[in-house]
Amino acid sequence: MPKSTTQLLISAARNIHLGDCTFDRDILAPDCPTPWFVRMHRLHGGRQEGVDVITIDNGRMRLRLSPTRGMGILDAEMGPLRLGWGSPVKEVVHPALINQLHRGRTGWLEGFSEFLCRCGLEFVGPPCMDTEHLAVGEPPAGNITLHGRIANIPASEVELEVQTSAPYAITLRGVVHERAMYGPKLELTAELTIVPGEQTFTVSDTVRNRGGQAQEMCLLYHINQGRPILEDGARLVAPIAESAPRDEGYSDKDIKNPDRYGKPTPASPEQCHFMELDADKRGMVSVLLHNKRKNLGLGLSWPKKQLPHFALWKGLHDERDGYVTGLEPCTTYPMPRPTEREDGRVVQIKPGAAYKAGLEFELFDEKAAVTKAAARI
Amino acid sequence: MPKSTTQLLISAARNIHLGDCTFDRDILAPDCPTPWFVRMHRLHGGRQEGVDVITIDNGRMRLRLSPTRGMGILDAEMGPLRLGWGSPVKEVVHPALINQLHRGRTGWLEGFSEFLCRCGLEFVGPPCMDTEHLAVGEPPAGNITLHGRIANIPASEVELEVQTSAPYAITLRGVVHERAMYGPKLELTAELTIVPGEQTFTVSDTVRNRGGQAQEMCLLYHINQGRPILEDGARLVAPIAESAPRDEGYSDKDIKNPDRYGKPTPASPEQCHFMELDADKRGMVSVLLHNKRKNLGLGLSWPKKQLPHFALWKGLHDERDGYVTGLEPCTTYPMPRPTEREDGRVVQIKPGAAYKAGLEFELFDEKAAVTKAAARI
Amino acid sequence: MPKSTTQLLISAARNIHLGDCTFDRDILAPDCPTPWFVRMHRLHGGRQEGVDVITIDNGRMRLRLSPTRGMGILDAEMGPLRLGWGSPVKEVVHPALINQLHRGRTGWLEGFSEFLCRCGLEFVGPPCMDTEHLAVGEPPAGNITLHGRIANIPASEVELEVQTSAPYAITLRGVVHERAMYGPKLELTAELTIVPGEQTFTVSDTVRNRGGQAQEMCLLYHINQGRPILEDGARLVAPIAESAPRDEGYSDKDIKNPDRYGKPTPASPEQCHFMELDADKRGMVSVLLHNKRKNLGLGLSWPKKQLPHFALWKGLHDERDGYVTGLEPCTTYPMPRPTEREDGRVVQIKPGAAYKAGLEFELFDEKAAVTKAAARI
Repeated sequence: MPKSTTQLLISAARNIHLGDCTFDRDILAPDCPTPWFVRMHRLHGGRQEGVDVITIDNGRMRLRLSPTRGMGILDAEMGPLRLGWGSPVKEVVHPALINQLHRGRTGWLEGFSEFLCRCGLEFVGPPCMDTEHLAVGEPPAGNITLHGRIANIPASEVELEVQTSAPYAITLRGVVHERAMYGPKLELTAELTIVPGEQTFTVSDTVRNRGGQAQEMCLLYHINQGRPILEDGARLVAPIAESAPRDEGYSDKDIKNPDRYGKPTPASPEQCHFMELDADKRGMVSVLLHNKRKNLGLGLSWPKKQLPHFALWKGLHDERDGYVTGLEPCTTYPMPRPTEREDGRVVQIKPGAAYKAGLEFELFDEKAAVTKAAARI
Repeated sequence: MPKSTTQLLISAARNIHLGDCTFDRDILAPDCPTPWFVRMHRLHGGRQEGVDVITIDNGRMRLRLSPTRGMGILDAEMGPLRLGWGSPVKEVVHPALINQLHRGRTGWLEGFSEFLCRCGLEFVGPPCMDTEHLAVGEPPAGNITLHGRIANIPASEVELEVQTSAPYAITLRGVVHERAMYGPKLELTAELTIVPGEQTFTVSDTVRNRGGQAQEMCLLYHINQGRPILEDGARLVAPIAESAPRDEGYSDKDIKNPDRYGKPTPASPEQCHFMELDADKRGMVSVLLHNKRKNLGLGLSWPKKQLPHFALWKGLHDERDGYVTGLEPCTTYPMPRPTEREDGRVVQIKPGAAYKAGLEFELFDEKAAVTKAAARI
Repeated sequence: MPKSTTQLLISAARNIHLGDCTFDRDILAPDCPTPWFVRMHRLHGGRQEGVDVITIDNGRMRLRLSPTRGMGILDAEMGPLRLGWGSPVKEVVHPALINQLHRGRTGWLEGFSEFLCRCGLEFVGPPCMDTEHLAVGEPPAGNITLHGRIANIPASEVELEVQTSAPYAITLRGVVHERAMYGPKLELTAELTIVPGEQTFTVSDTVRNRGGQAQEMCLLYHINQGRPILEDGARLVAPIAESAPRDEGYSDKDIKNPDRYGKPTPASPEQCHFMELDADKRGMVSVLLHNKRKNLGLGLSWPKKQLPHFALWKGLHDERDGYVTGLEPCTTYPMPRPTEREDGRVVQIKPGAAYKAGLEFELFDEKAAVTKAAARI
């Protein structure tokens, strides 16, 4: 195990917020051959006033995440490749300005612009009423809002951990609390790990039930990609065992080939396909989203046991409305929680216990690598 | 066209917020014969913590507006004349502390204290349910809240533009985004222009549809005046072609003379009169609110084409509850949006297109000028 | 009357916020024989970013309160004694991040962690609909949320007043406005007074109706205590004249001895007992909560006329879910406001008039003192 050093950036427990600051290879890991830096800075103007953003540049690619928005990953870039999408929401909106109950409880959509946005932790999916009493002495969740609360909760603790010897991995770790008296007591520890010079990164999350009773937990990774990977002729390579359209009225072609993408189509409705994907021998599910020419791609893999389900969101809208696809590995489908519960898909975490989920990301900017990765799936 | 210079005050795009700052004639327009200044400062305490206010002093009058509250104009003063009113809401409330869904979706009223408060942009009027699907693939607006969202959205971009030669006009320009994924993508550019030494100012707004589908837009200027203009015997001089009371139960006198004002009357309900006003040959509608002695007045004019309708709000309440009248030029009456839509009054903006609206304000502090202005109408 | 000096800490009226600052005996009351200090500082991280906390150390005990959360008292400590409890809500949550309409309008519970949390002022008790028109021309309160708004409104004015001669009392005074156009216009002046070296403190509140019509007002002090006073065998000594369980299904033992406490019991529902307590000759009601060994205790007394009712909340939950009891002197029981109104318990304040309520707190850390105090009741 390589040695490591840690640096606290934000801590509610210790009442620390470093404000604008930069840490780099020279300061924290002088032996590392690849220069890198991690920078935290505060956003200003409009609905992003007071939002913190952390940039991680590993010498090969550059990621941005926001502790203020539940440790969501805003975007990443590596040369011509950009992870993320052009949401009509242009700013990194402060949670204090989001009212999730607006617009029929879809107010979440007023802040939705991330590349990776976690949905959960108490519930995911569409607005619904959930009047089930899940814990003794606690009221039911009631008026459930779209995709849950976690993306709009600022991280309480954020620390940077850096290995001082090979592979010199850089880990940014945030703790986000979804808590209430007579409500959820869920603690998300969200880790992003990236090795200097590599074109991969890892998300590794732990959700712990800090309450005294068993608690339901839903987690969905809303991983959203637009151009330059998404385009007419782009494709999702995935080990699709089963696929079912969420809604009626999709064309036969769309149902048969959910993995194919067309060009932006103004005034076209979104599509969502619920899938079961096959795991490989190691239990890993791998998918690859690549552009038409197959020279740009995003690879994703995760343990099927952790995230057994998958939703594919296709928002092939006019660019101004968001031209995007969402790859959504999840513990439950984004359906009303009562339905998911009935179908036995909602995870329960015992008091003190934890649920782990993680994802590996690989960025591709060469045809050979894309072809090889596609062949592996 | 006179030359001009610009100074960015706030910019989400460039991540700029100048904080407390002052710009004046000497710095930006040294040739201007009239000294003036523009100052931005942050408010503290209670519900106004973190709110920005910009003061414009043109050497003759002094205006205050708040970029944090959607570029609303807080008040103005010129000698004994004060534009604005004594709202029971005493602070310039930060939008983060406003929940528009409170109190039967009238939470907007917890922050309402401006002289000029824009209502809109997606909807204006009372809370209602609007379940109409207005765009393909987007949910309906749903639980519509009183008077819309724009007054509680901080401006993303704010710049000062100053002419460096006569007439040395000072323009404060703010951009406010009312945006959501699967929702409105409306961009308001709000301009306030004032010439040094003059006792007039102009509001000039552009609402652009940044989405890929046609979008409904509602805009109402809630222009609110209390003392010293409003008093027993004050009058609205207006080219009233038609007037209809919003509610039943108003007295015949009130219905016949909606343009007359009485003294504060504790425990009296508000009145609202919906009017059609006549335009002059240039297509302009002009109204004048003056006090009893006719030595103080507020003149207002606007192109009828831009703001074809008019609502007159009379809140002749106890001073402590707000003694106020609202002059409300608007694109639609402040009625439930479904009703206004049915009656054909809701504006539609095509993708990329814009809707323009503007108002001219004149402040009067002499009897001769008031009389002359009244005669013109 | 001893002379005094005042120091403004926060003022919306004067646009002042001192930020992190400390005042002490040497600066403000050099003749005082007991050293003391008052410190204001801002919290950082997670949901507490931007929250102000004021610590008062009187040389004997140390209290913390938060002007940002309506002048609520967070906790107090005196040697081994700690007032407060272990809420599952770990931070002092900023009101901007609380949406009281979440979770079936119990969103208040997402910020609930104080030792003394005021409930009110427009309403207290459970969510309900209140469609009664209470004031002419104003809409009804509508969708009432759990326990009202006041705990989530930042104080507009905060000042420290210090006597410069014996008894050198230190008073922290905050003004909190619960205001809306066409809504409540209630002004709470909340005073906390503490004498250097003493182990008592006083809360003294005035709620003034700043509106022009009579206004209903509800006030409940949610005084919450966990360990070390609360434990298996702890007891509330109180002059119980009558006691009625709020809900059906409590055991006979619980109904007969609501004043006895058991150990934390995972998955046990809360209990609430509504009581009438007897006043002594001076009209004061006194209660004492003590631990099993009777060497730690909290004494509370108040004028029955001001707070005629009392609710006892017993949340003997797993420690992780909150092991707590709430002593709740109140103007109305925490029941739906329409019910309380019907039963004639809701206070009305006339325009300009005020309602006063106050409480005396005494901390006990010796068996003799606890025994003596218990005997007095």
